[in-house]
Amino acid sequence: MKPIYFKAEDLKQYIVDFMKHFDVPKTDAEVVADVLVTADLRGIDSHGISRLYSYYGKRLKESLINPQTPTEILSETANSLHIDGGNGLGQVVAERTMSKCIEKAKGAGVAFASVRNSNHFGIAGYYAMMALPENMIGITLTNSQPLVAPTHGMRPMLGTNPIAVAVPAGDEKDFVLDMATSVVPMGKISMHQERNEEIPKEWGMDGNGKPTTNPKILQEGGALNPLGGRGEKMRGYKGYGLSLLVDIFTGILGGASYGPNVGSPLGTGESNVDIGHFFGAMKIELFRSLQEFKADLDTLMKELKQSEKAPEADRIYIHGEKEFEKMKEKSQKGIPILPSVLNSLEKVGEDLGVPFNLEPCHSSNKKG
Amino acid sequence: MKPIYFKAEDLKQYIVDFMKHFDVPKTDAEVVADVLVTADLRGIDSHGISRLYSYYGKRLKESLINPQTPTEILSETANSLHIDGGNGLGQVVAERTMSKCIEKAKGAGVAFASVRNSNHFGIAGYYAMMALPENMIGITLTNSQPLVAPTHGMRPMLGTNPIAVAVPAGDEKDFVLDMATSVVPMGKISMHQERNEEIPKEWGMDGNGKPTTNPKILQEGGALNPLGGRGEKMRGYKGYGLSLLVDIFTGILGGASYGPNVGSPLGTGESNVDIGHFFGAMKIELFRSLQEFKADLDTLMKELKQSEKAPEADRIYIHGEKEFEKMKEKSQKGIPILPSVLNSLEKVGEDLGVPFNLEPCHSSNKKG
Repeated sequence: MKPIYFKAEDLKQYIVDFMKHFDVPKTDAEVVADVLVTADLRGIDSHGISRLYSYYGKRLKESLINPQTPTEILSETANSLHIDGGNGLGQVVAERTMSKCIEKAKGAGVAFASVRNSNHFGIAGYYAMMALPENMIGITLTNSQPLVAPTHGMRPMLGTNPIAVAVPAGDEKDFVLDMATSVVPMGKISMHQERNEEIPKEWGMDGNGKPTTNPKILQEGGALNPLGGRGEKMRGYKGYGLSLLVDIFTGILGGASYGPNVGSPLGTGESNVDIGHFFGAMKIELFRSLQEFKADLDTLMKELKQSEKAPEADRIYIHGEKEFEKMKEKSQKGIPILPSVLNSLEKVGEDLGVPFNLEPCHSSNKKG
Repeated sequence: MKPIYFKAEDLKQYIVDFMKHFDVPKTDAEVVADVLVTADLRGIDSHGISRLYSYYGKRLKESLINPQTPTEILSETANSLHIDGGNGLGQVVAERTMSKCIEKAKGAGVAFASVRNSNHFGIAGYYAMMALPENMIGITLTNSQPLVAPTHGMRPMLGTNPIAVAVPAGDEKDFVLDMATSVVPMGKISMHQERNEEIPKEWGMDGNGKPTTNPKILQEGGALNPLGGRGEKMRGYKGYGLSLLVDIFTGILGGASYGPNVGSPLGTGESNVDIGHFFGAMKIELFRSLQEFKADLDTLMKELKQSEKAPEADRIYIHGEKEFEKMKEKSQKGIPILPSVLNSLEKVGEDLGVPFNLEPCHSSNKKG
């Protein structure tokens, strides 16, 4: 079960070809490719090329996503945008909207956008990070299909609704928080199931509302716990509150679906997934000089990383640091694709007429 | 150890008199009184009148807080403010700044303020909730003295840095999330110590970085865990990330102290506490009609509350709901003050020449 390594550029080109096959315009296809491969480079495999068919290709094939992504501005001010995503590709909706948000923030200092009628957009952090080259703080929120039970509840009523915030540092790596508001996302549960591993009983529950260590049982009618876990001891109501907050800023403020009614990218129904997003961009200079801000942020990051380690630990991280390191490593070494994922890419590619026949990037990894 | 009940209005008047004794202008004293008594009414006793001397009176007496609260606007735009709190009373700094923020948001749609050189301001939710009568979303963040260890660390490097967001609902009670980004605030640890109760070992650690169930040992050189707890199993790095995010928006963006250098309201040093705050106000109508927004929020709240309960539970709450119910009850029944807190108020009042001689509001509760 050793992974096979592929060059990021090759995978991107494949995704572009795959998307073009479904009438996605080339520049839009390039956005989707960059978002998915960036997830793989950053080590967030659950949101990378492994989802190409299940989240996007299948819906394109069944005409459940509009490949033209006909976004529409419903209203705007100097510092705000309300966007209809036209049931297009979530990545394209998000990239376009965050670009507009950043442009507005250049003039107004700060700008926000709320989006309805979109689809799964991959990693939230990608769009928050678009603000970094502009020396702005970037914010991205999205709702998602119901998987999380509210505190004291037992039915999936809210999504794992992530919060992503990116902040530019100086000499240190930028701060990139990109977190699901549940303890873990559902992808983590599936990974345990694939490996035949138990899950900690604090991660979720079965269909009867009892804690379970069985990832299969959790996925079949159970629910995830919010960050902080079940009940009140570890303050799971805070994770529940953050998840609800994200749904308020995305589903409700955007006029999209919300709560238990958000569609799943894996869903087979004909109605739109109708996800809501929220984006923000803010200039540091509204408050402080960029130089002072970055110097102070560097100092705080260093103080945290150099502070005394717990007995069992040898390193303290800043958020995003691990991912930047993985990105550097994988840009050189290639992106590892598990044999099961590779088989699936090959099978789907063949069925659809977009053959996946890339050369692995190490000769030692060539398929036999 | 039964509490004695006092009328909210009587407690407010006492705090006004107490503050005036230290040359705090009457209107400012009224703000402090309202913030502290609102905390008591909402059941957040750790941030109410019990802190009158320890957090505020003592520092006023020792001239460590400027009673005139000479706030200064360092810079501003149509939608932003950078404020120096003049080392004044945190409540006064915060109330003034949030008021200005709301005024700006009336014109610009959205506005933010970052503040340096302030002091402990009580409950963050108070200022976020100031946006509610204006039908805006209110946001308040603050940093605070170091009590929380970063994931894999063992020294207090960040504050319990709360996040408060208030969102206006329709028929339902407004959404008010007001949460420390640690599992619990330090006040919860002290309460366990006073009651001679153990704490769950997941809440924090001793001075050697080992989990402890002893609240006294945690407070003497230990540290609190971030939301999600210790290590990676329950994703404590998310709580750590939220705490760091709050410090970036308050200490660093505001140009205040940050990380391990933030002063404690209990500190005896001569240097300023130099806390940083961040405030935001946003019009719903930037994105949706108020009516549609409130109707959808009401629906989501009802769906959550009416969803199936876990076997051990009988009610699902929305954030802020418990506190609104407590507020209603205590506005009628009075605010319960523990005998130990009452003794302390009486002693301090006598020493300072501001005698605490209020009549309890139930004859049955009269002190013998």
